[in-house]
Amino acid sequence: MIIDCHGHYTTAPAEAEAWRKLQVQALGNPSQAPSKASLRISDDQIRESLEGAQLKLQRMRGTDLTFFSPRASAMAHHIGDARTSLVWSEICNELVHRCCTLYPDNFVGVCQLPQSPGVRPETCIAELERCVKEFGFVGCNLNPDPSGGHWKEPPLTDKWWYPLYEKMVELEVPAMVHVSTSCNPAFHTTGAHYLNADTTAFMQFLTSDLFKDFPTLKFVIPHGGGAVPYHWGRYRGLAQDMKRPPLQELLLKNVFFDTCVYHRPGIELLLKVIPVDNILFASEMVGAVRGIDPETGHHYDDTRRYIDSIDWLSEADRTKIFEGNARKVYARLRMT
Amino acid sequence: MIIDCHGHYTTAPAEAEAWRKLQVQALGNPSQAPSKASLRISDDQIRESLEGAQLKLQRMRGTDLTFFSPRASAMAHHIGDARTSLVWSEICNELVHRCCTLYPDNFVGVCQLPQSPGVRPETCIAELERCVKEFGFVGCNLNPDPSGGHWKEPPLTDKWWYPLYEKMVELEVPAMVHVSTSCNPAFHTTGAHYLNADTTAFMQFLTSDLFKDFPTLKFVIPHGGGAVPYHWGRYRGLAQDMKRPPLQELLLKNVFFDTCVYHRPGIELLLKVIPVDNILFASEMVGAVRGIDPETGHHYDDTRRYIDSIDWLSEADRTKIFEGNARKVYARLRMT
Repeated sequence: MIIDCHGHYTTAPAEAEAWRKLQVQALGNPSQAPSKASLRISDDQIRESLEGAQLKLQRMRGTDLTFFSPRASAMAHHIGDARTSLVWSEICNELVHRCCTLYPDNFVGVCQLPQSPGVRPETCIAELERCVKEFGFVGCNLNPDPSGGHWKEPPLTDKWWYPLYEKMVELEVPAMVHVSTSCNPAFHTTGAHYLNADTTAFMQFLTSDLFKDFPTLKFVIPHGGGAVPYHWGRYRGLAQDMKRPPLQELLLKNVFFDTCVYHRPGIELLLKVIPVDNILFASEMVGAVRGIDPETGHHYDDTRRYIDSIDWLSEADRTKIFEGNARKVYARLRMT
Repeated sequence: MIIDCHGHYTTAPAEAEAWRKLQVQALGNPSQAPSKASLRISDDQIRESLEGAQLKLQRMRGTDLTFFSPRASAMAHHIGDARTSLVWSEICNELVHRCCTLYPDNFVGVCQLPQSPGVRPETCIAELERCVKEFGFVGCNLNPDPSGGHWKEPPLTDKWWYPLYEKMVELEVPAMVHVSTSCNPAFHTTGAHYLNADTTAFMQFLTSDLFKDFPTLKFVIPHGGGAVPYHWGRYRGLAQDMKRPPLQELLLKNVFFDTCVYHRPGIELLLKVIPVDNILFASEMVGAVRGIDPETGHHYDDTRRYIDSIDWLSEADRTKIFEGNARKVYARLRMT
């Protein structure tokens, strides 16, 4: 079985985006805000949105199950206030839940959290619990920068986040560290902000004792860990200079990397330097890069091919990457 | 000959830092500001600061010439105003000039620019010209984020920066894109902010036509290009999805990467995916990581060893990386 731990519902019917537009237009004027019930999307529309995209690609690529979450760039936690974010998150999570219900063999849900800049993370607990307990979701996406590129929130290791972590631990759900759209013109969303956030979060973990406080808390850093595996020597050296414990001991029981790296040399580096127990297969399809690589004739984001082509990887290790590690990190999968 | 294109004067005598402290203390009270002349450092102190550090390491590692610039984390352009930054930059650049004058075979200068948040970059031209014309410096370090982690400046591709670029082109000096200390608690300086800035700058270049306007403008992206080579497939794919020209054509005549990547697998990836003409040897010593890697028994930042160990690299390509490319990018080196 091949589990893709990182897929977003980037192909949701246009009605969802239109509803969001109305919500944003009504920001100064709450009486104009659209009701949740006003969004009408049929099961057939959902089927259609998936059949020609994620489901087709699963079949083509021979992957089985995708951990499916709302479109990351559309989370846009910086828009409006906590109420805006809550209603939008509910809508997005409910849509993902419908995908999972229609295709229970293909999708398992991961939720968007109703974060809002400067608002305490415990406000996200109710929606997390709803998604996990009522919908059977197995994880959440946590945005370390709900400001959208201005980075005003305390680091992920600050006690600010602890109430949410307590709930994550209780529910046994990991968080993928995932920012949303950048509204800072310095940062391109998918080409800079996403990767920077991955790198930033890792370094926050490295400099803290968060995992002493939460020994079972788990994070997946997407996009192959940003810059981290490429600079693994730098990180080992920085930890050593700071008299921190070795990375293995300091954070590798808690921090995992996905395989959203879109060329073979990158994947090979990842598999060489990061312990195999810390790598979870993912493609982020349909996501940031949709084209076909003229150098290979295949989609850039068909990451299974890169892993398949690495002949020094043992079958046991391959199975861990494709399935076993996801089952360990997303412990609730056994309950779905 | 081996040219290290990225070294900082991180070992300057303590008097320099003490002077800076006085300058910062006097910020609200200009009459208390220390004069430049009040900073007294002898030639012997400078010799001592280098002999046991950069010079010793050059000898140990068999490298010859270092492009030497003021300590990057101490530039701290966010402190005070343009005047504060100018005086501090002059002091730092003059100290580097003294290093280069005392050891003309070992060091060639690269200058700090007196940037200040929100202040137009043309204010840096006079100091750039002084360093290049009077001191024989061959490049500059350009900070894309003088705010120190708040990223309030326009992207490097904005016309905001053009007057500085015109001068760089006229003088034939490249800029290394190099941020300074992060004063944003989200970003660790050397573990996140530096690498994020590298990634960010590359994506700014990718999405713009800057090099149509300045066909001979050159940038070196340090720290092995941040996350870029590891995600080279992502960048090729993003450019393709955006209907941009192939990266080779779009920016590889203008954008170069150094080799400050502190483990062999990272260096190997860099050499595999980035064209050899775009890679310049560097170590950043004495810099961000100072320890010895227990896995190799050598300093993490002894990057020459990693390159030496890559046996599929031809001698001609090795020479380009160690010397030839630096001579091409830093065209004024021929004049020194």
